[in-house]
Amino acid sequence: MLALSVDIGGTHIGCAVVRDREILAFSSLESEGSESLASLLASIAETMRCLLAEAQSGAAECQGVAIGFPGIVDARTGRIFSTLKKYEDAVHLDLPGWSRETFGVPLRIENDARMALLGEQYAGAAQGVHDVVMMTLGTGIGGAAMILGKLLRGAHSQAACLGGHLPVDFRGRPCSCGNIGCAEAEAAGWSLPGVVRGWPGLESSSLLQAPRLDFRTIFAAAAQGDRVAVEVRQRCLEVWAANAVALIHAYDPEMVVMGGGVMQSGAAILPYVQEYVARHAWAAWGKPQVRSAVLGEKAGLLGAVPLLQEEF
Amino acid sequence: MLALSVDIGGTHIGCAVVRDREILAFSSLESEGSESLASLLASIAETMRCLLAEAQSGAAECQGVAIGFPGIVDARTGRIFSTLKKYEDAVHLDLPGWSRETFGVPLRIENDARMALLGEQYAGAAQGVHDVVMMTLGTGIGGAAMILGKLLRGAHSQAACLGGHLPVDFRGRPCSCGNIGCAEAEAAGWSLPGVVRGWPGLESSSLLQAPRLDFRTIFAAAAQGDRVAVEVRQRCLEVWAANAVALIHAYDPEMVVMGGGVMQSGAAILPYVQEYVARHAWAAWGKPQVRSAVLGEKAGLLGAVPLLQEEF
Repeated sequence: MLALSVDIGGTHIGCAVVRDREILAFSSLESEGSESLASLLASIAETMRCLLAEAQSGAAECQGVAIGFPGIVDARTGRIFSTLKKYEDAVHLDLPGWSRETFGVPLRIENDARMALLGEQYAGAAQGVHDVVMMTLGTGIGGAAMILGKLLRGAHSQAACLGGHLPVDFRGRPCSCGNIGCAEAEAAGWSLPGVVRGWPGLESSSLLQAPRLDFRTIFAAAAQGDRVAVEVRQRCLEVWAANAVALIHAYDPEMVVMGGGVMQSGAAILPYVQEYVARHAWAAWGKPQVRSAVLGEKAGLLGAVPLLQEEF
Repeated sequence: MLALSVDIGGTHIGCAVVRDREILAFSSLESEGSESLASLLASIAETMRCLLAEAQSGAAECQGVAIGFPGIVDARTGRIFSTLKKYEDAVHLDLPGWSRETFGVPLRIENDARMALLGEQYAGAAQGVHDVVMMTLGTGIGGAAMILGKLLRGAHSQAACLGGHLPVDFRGRPCSCGNIGCAEAEAAGWSLPGVVRGWPGLESSSLLQAPRLDFRTIFAAAAQGDRVAVEVRQRCLEVWAANAVALIHAYDPEMVVMGGGVMQSGAAILPYVQEYVARHAWAAWGKPQVRSAVLGEKAGLLGAVPLLQEEF
C-alpha cells in the first residue's frame, strides 16, 4: 500500500511517500518560526508533490494521507481536540477536506506518540507484538499503548498518550500539565534544568558552568565522575524505570519500547530499565521485554499504513 | 435475567440469587479457616440451593453462575491464572465443569475488583457511564477500568486490576508485589502499620498504644488532634488522590468510583480526592467526576448479570 505521511513536530515537519514498511521519498520542512498550521499546508502540499514525483507515483495511487500531530487528536473523526501551545489554529482546520481537495484522497490524523508506536509495531522494534507500550523520552515523555493489536485511545482520545503524566512522586515537582510529580516533571528535557538547579552541591559541580542543561550534558559530566551529574543521572534512571513499571501494570503489555532523542545520550538507560523491570514489574504470565526503538524519527512516518488500514 | 452470583473474599464468600439489578436472596459463608476453594464448593452449592428455594426459582431459570475471585482471572476462558496466597488450588479447578454438573448452567469468572466495577456501573454509582475507573481501598487497593462500555482486561488479564500498583513514590516503600512505592505500599490496610511505625514523633502519639493500626484508628486519632495521626492521614489522602489522577491519565474516564471498607472510616476522603482531581487531573474535554461507591459489599454480586451478558 502507498501512502502520504506527515509527521508534525515543533521545529520540523517530516513529509514522506511510504510503501508499506519502506520510505520511498522523504523531506523535512523547517517549522520553528511558524505558529499556524494553516500557513504550512501549502508547503506541505508542494513538498508532497515533489516527493510523489521522486517516487514516480501519483497521489491517486495513494490510500490516503496520514498525519502525526503533537496534541490530543480524535482519530475516528479526524478532529484535533487540543494542541500544546503550538499550532493552535489546528483545532479549526478541516484537514480531511484539505486532503480531498489537494490530493483527492482521504486523510487520517493521530497523536504523534501513537503514530511512533504504530510505526515501531508495524516496521520496527515491536513487529509481530500485539501488546506493547512505548515511552518517548525527549522534551517531554510521550506515551502510547497497543492492546490486543489495537491502539488504546479511550473515551476522549487521552488514554495512554498521557503515559509521561503518571505521577512517580506524589510530593514532587509541579508538572506543566497541572499535576504533581509526573514522570515528565521529574525527568524530561523541559524539567531537567529545574531539577539540576536545586541539587545540593551544585556550587562545586561542572554543571554550574554548562551552557545547556540537557541530558547529553548530564550523561557526559556523569561519565567524567561529576558527583551531581551522577546523582541526577541515577534519579532520572529511577524515574524512567518506575514509569516503565507503571505502564506495564497499567496496560499489561509483552514489551516496552523506549524511544526519543534522550535514548541517544545514555547507553546506560536501556539496561537499567530492563534490569529494574525484571526485578520490580508484576507479571504473573512471564517477563515483559524492554527494547530500544529502532526507527528513530522515521517511526511516526511508518505508522501511516497501519493507521490508514485500521477499521474503526 | 436471573443469575447465581458468588463473591469470593478472603474471610467470607457472598452467595446470591440476583435478578438484574436486584438481590433476591443472599447469604454469606465463613471462609477464614479454609485455604482450598475445592473444599468450599459443596457448601457454595448447598447455599445456592437454599437461596434458589428462598427466591422461588430453579437453577434452570438462571442464565449462569458468575464468580468474583481475588486473583488474576481469564474471563474469556474461565481460567484462574494466579491467586494471591489464598485458594491456590483454584488454578487447577474446572469451575465451568463444576457449574454445569451442579446447576446445569454455564459459568463465568472475573477478578473481584472488576466485578465490583461492573456492579457499580450496572446498578450503582456509575449507572449509564461507559468510561469509569474504580479504586477499592481496603487491605490492598483494588483497581478496574471500563472504556467505551467494555472492561479493560489486556493481553494477560492484568490490565487495570493492578491500579493500586502504580507507583506514587519511586523511592518509597517495598510493595508486596515486588515493586517500589506502589499506592498500595504507601497507603493501604496491610502497609499502614509499617508507615506509622516509622513516623517521627510516634513516641508521643496516642497511636503508640493503639491495639490495631487500621484506618479507623488513624482517622479517629486525627479527629482528636493527634499530630502523628493528622500527618499520616494527610499523607494517605495525598497518595489516594495521586493514584486517582494516575488512573484518570491512564484510562481517560468520565468518572472515578471510590469504594472499599476504608471509605467508611474517613468522611474526608471523597472531598479531598474530588478537590485534588479538579485541581490536578489533565482532561482537555472537561472534568472527571469522583464519586463514592453505593453498593458496598453487594457491588461484586450485582456484576453477575453484565458479566454473563458480555460478548467476548
